[in-house]
Amino acid sequence: VNPTRVIERKRDGLALDPADLRAFLQGYLEGGVPDYQMSALLMAIVFQGLSPDETAVLVETMVGSGATLDLGYLDLPRVDKHSTGGVGDKVSLVLAPLAAELGMYVPMMSGRGLGHTTGTLDKLEAIPGFRVDLPLERFKAVLQSVGCAMTGQTDEIAPLDRRLYALRDVTGTVPSIPLIAASIMSKKLAEGLDGLVLDVKVGDGAFLPDAAKARELARTMVGIGVDRGLRTVAVLTAMDRPLGVAVGNGLETAEAIRCLGGDGPDDLRSVVLELATEMALAADPGADRDDAARRAEGALSSGRALDRFERMVDAQGGDVTVLKRPEALCTAPEQTEVRADRSGTVQEVRPRVLGEAVVALGGGRTEVGQDIDSGVGFEVTARPGDQVAAGDVLARVHARDADGLELGRRTILESVRIADGPAPEQFPLVLERISAPGSVES
Amino acid sequence: VNPTRVIERKRDGLALDPADLRAFLQGYLEGGVPDYQMSALLMAIVFQGLSPDETAVLVETMVGSGATLDLGYLDLPRVDKHSTGGVGDKVSLVLAPLAAELGMYVPMMSGRGLGHTTGTLDKLEAIPGFRVDLPLERFKAVLQSVGCAMTGQTDEIAPLDRRLYALRDVTGTVPSIPLIAASIMSKKLAEGLDGLVLDVKVGDGAFLPDAAKARELARTMVGIGVDRGLRTVAVLTAMDRPLGVAVGNGLETAEAIRCLGGDGPDDLRSVVLELATEMALAADPGADRDDAARRAEGALSSGRALDRFERMVDAQGGDVTVLKRPEALCTAPEQTEVRADRSGTVQEVRPRVLGEAVVALGGGRTEVGQDIDSGVGFEVTARPGDQVAAGDVLARVHARDADGLELGRRTILESVRIADGPAPEQFPLVLERISAPGSVES
Repeated sequence: VNPTRVIERKRDGLALDPADLRAFLQGYLEGGVPDYQMSALLMAIVFQGLSPDETAVLVETMVGSGATLDLGYLDLPRVDKHSTGGVGDKVSLVLAPLAAELGMYVPMMSGRGLGHTTGTLDKLEAIPGFRVDLPLERFKAVLQSVGCAMTGQTDEIAPLDRRLYALRDVTGTVPSIPLIAASIMSKKLAEGLDGLVLDVKVGDGAFLPDAAKARELARTMVGIGVDRGLRTVAVLTAMDRPLGVAVGNGLETAEAIRCLGGDGPDDLRSVVLELATEMALAADPGADRDDAARRAEGALSSGRALDRFERMVDAQGGDVTVLKRPEALCTAPEQTEVRADRSGTVQEVRPRVLGEAVVALGGGRTEVGQDIDSGVGFEVTARPGDQVAAGDVLARVHARDADGLELGRRTILESVRIADGPAPEQFPLVLERISAPGSVES
Repeated sequence: VNPTRVIERKRDGLALDPADLRAFLQGYLEGGVPDYQMSALLMAIVFQGLSPDETAVLVETMVGSGATLDLGYLDLPRVDKHSTGGVGDKVSLVLAPLAAELGMYVPMMSGRGLGHTTGTLDKLEAIPGFRVDLPLERFKAVLQSVGCAMTGQTDEIAPLDRRLYALRDVTGTVPSIPLIAASIMSKKLAEGLDGLVLDVKVGDGAFLPDAAKARELARTMVGIGVDRGLRTVAVLTAMDRPLGVAVGNGLETAEAIRCLGGDGPDDLRSVVLELATEMALAADPGADRDDAARRAEGALSSGRALDRFERMVDAQGGDVTVLKRPEALCTAPEQTEVRADRSGTVQEVRPRVLGEAVVALGGGRTEVGQDIDSGVGFEVTARPGDQVAAGDVLARVHARDADGLELGRRTILESVRIADGPAPEQFPLVLERISAPGSVES
C-alpha cells in the first residue's frame, strides 16, 4: 500500500480499505511510515472522521501493538470506570474501592492531569508515599489481594496509542471524536475487562463541553466496546459546575476520603453511587438495578469502602494516617476566604476558569512531565441557585503566596456569577445513559 | 509562537496572525518546526484554505528563503510565461524566442514532467546536447546575448518551496489552490520579472480540469503577482483536447520547431500568438493590442523566431542540425497508424488518457528522477467534429516495441470517441483573460 494514497483517500472522504489502513498503521509502528505522513492522515481524520469499520481497525492495531492484561486468574468479574475528565472530578478514588465491595475486581489504570482538568494519579500522589507506577506483576498482586488497584498506564499497554497521542498533541489533531474514542478504548480493552463504565462529562468544564459532541463520543466508545464483546455503558454527567466542593489535587483527595467516610458533598456521592450501580450491572448483567443501588449505598455508608481504600493505600505504599485526618493534605501555606461582592442569586459556577487557575497556581500542567503542587486549589462552597448577601463566603483559596491568593480571589469572582433573578437551569447530575451505539436512556 | 497553536487556528478556520505564520515558516526553514507539524498545517490548509494575507506571507517567505535573480543589467523588460501544464503543451518552446523578438527578455525557468503532463525541460532535452542545468551566471549570459534562455529551477531559488513541495507530494496535500498558487508564484517572483503571463489550462487534460477551480487558481496567482508589483495576467486556455497534434516529448519538440518555421497546427499557433501578444502588453502596458498581435504574427511567419530559437539552442549546447530535420526527434523504433473502427463524428479527443499512456510507454515519470524515453508518444490527427469513415487514420503511435504499439492503439480508440450526430461543443481556445484578482474578460 502506498501511504500517500491512504492519506489522499481519507482527505477526499472515501472509505479506507481495512487492509490498507492496517498496513499504514503497522508501517508507522515499524518505521516505514514517517511521522509527517501520520500527522497528515490524522489531520485529514479530524476533518473527515473515521467510519466504525475504520475505527475498529485503529483500535485493534492499538491493542495489538502491546501487551494485554491477563486477569483470568481472578475469580470475579473485572470492571473498570473511565472518565473523560472534569473539574473537581475525584470520583475514581471513591468508586474503585466501593465497586470492589460490590463483588468485582477493579483494575484501574489512570492518567495524569493536563490542561484544565486534574488527573487521578496526581490526586493519589498527594497521599505521601503512594506509588502509581506499579510494575504489572505488583499491580496484579494488589488487585488480587485488595480487590482494586490504581496505577498509571504502563509502557507495555497500547504503545501505538501513546505514540499517536504524543504526535496528536503537537499537531493540532487531538479534537477528533473517533481518535479520542479509539485512544481511550484501546487502553481499556487491553486491561482484559468484563465490563466498563464510561463517565462522559458534559458542560463548560468538560473536555467536550457540547452535549451533542459528548453524546457522539459516548456512542462511539460504547460501539467500540460492544463490537469487541466488552459490556460497555456510558453515562453522561453534569460538568456545567464543579463536581463537589474541592478543586485541586490534594484538596480533592481529602474530599474523596471524606466521601468514603460518609461525609462527602451530595453531588459527588450521587454520581459515585450511580456509577457504582452501573459497575455492578456491568459485572452481573442479571442483577437488579435497585438492589445494586442499595448495596452500593450500604457499602459507602457502612465505611466498608473506606476500609478497602485504606488497604489499597497501604498496599501501594501510601501513608494511611492521612485517612484519619484528610485536612493534612491541605498543604498550601496561604489560605483566604473569598466573599460575595454583591447580593443576589448565584447564576452559575463556571468550572473551566477554576481548572485553569489551578494550573496557574502551580497545581496543574501545561506540558507533560511538569512537577505540580498538590496543595493549591479551591474549595467552592457556593452552588448555582444559592441566595447570597454581599460579604457571604463563596469559596476558600489555597495558594503558595500572596500573588496566588489574589489570582484565586479574582478567579472565584469570575467563576461564581451573582445576579438578580432566578438562576438558569443546570444539567441534572446524570443526563443520559448510553448502552449501545444508537441508544439513549435519559 | 507555539507551532501547535498555529496549526489549531488554521484547523478551526481562524485567521493566522501574519507574524505567527511567518515565525512558523521560518521555524520550519531553520529546523525548529519539524516536518510532522508542517504536514499537519498543510493538510489543515487543504481544508480551510489561506486568506490573501496569509498567502502573501507564504509567498514572501518562500521568495526570501533563497536567491532572487538580479536582471537589472538588461536594457529591456523581463517577461516570462508559466503554464499549469497540459497534454501536448509545447507552447514555451515557440513562445520564448518569439516573445524575445517583440522587445523583451524572456528568462524562462521551467519544470520537468510528472504524471500525465510532460515538461518543458524534457522537451528541450530531446534535442541532443541541450543543457537545461545552466549555472545562474551562464543562464544570465545566454539571456543577455540571445534574448531568451530556458533552464531548470536552480537550488538557489525558493528552497522553501522545494521543501514544501516534496513534503506535499507524499502527504496528500498537493491539491490546495493557495498552496499551488504560492508555489508557482514564489518561483516566478524570484526571477526578477517585470511581467508574467499565466497560461491556466482548463479541461480533462489540465492539472485542474474544472473551470471554476482553474479560474480560482488564476485569480489567486494574479492577486499574488499584482500585490507584489508584478504585471501579471492569466489566460484560461482549452485543455479539453490535446494542444496540437503531437503528444510525447520529442514529438512535441519537433512540432514546436515546425511551428517556429510557420508550419505548426493552427490551434498551437493561435495559443502561441495570443500569449505572445499578452507578453508584449506585459512588457509595455502602453502598447496597442492589435499592433502587438500583428508584430507577433510577423515574427513567427518571417522565421525570425526560429532563428532566435536556433541561437538559443546553440548557446545552450544543443545540436542545431535537428532544426532543419525535426523528424530526427522521432526516435522510437516502432510506429503504426491507428484507424477508425467505425464511421461517424469524432465526439471528443480526451487528452488525459493520452498523457497517461505516454507515461506507460516510458515517456513520462511516475516518480521524480526517473529516466524517460523522449521518442515515444502520439501524433493525433483526429480532431473533435471531424467526420470519419471506418478505416480512416486517427493517429500514429510511436513506441519501443510491439506491446507499446498495442497499448498505444487501445489508447487512441479510448481517447478518440466516434459516434453519430454532432460533436458536443468544445471550449474556445481562449476562454477568459484575468488581469486582477476579481476581473474576468472573456
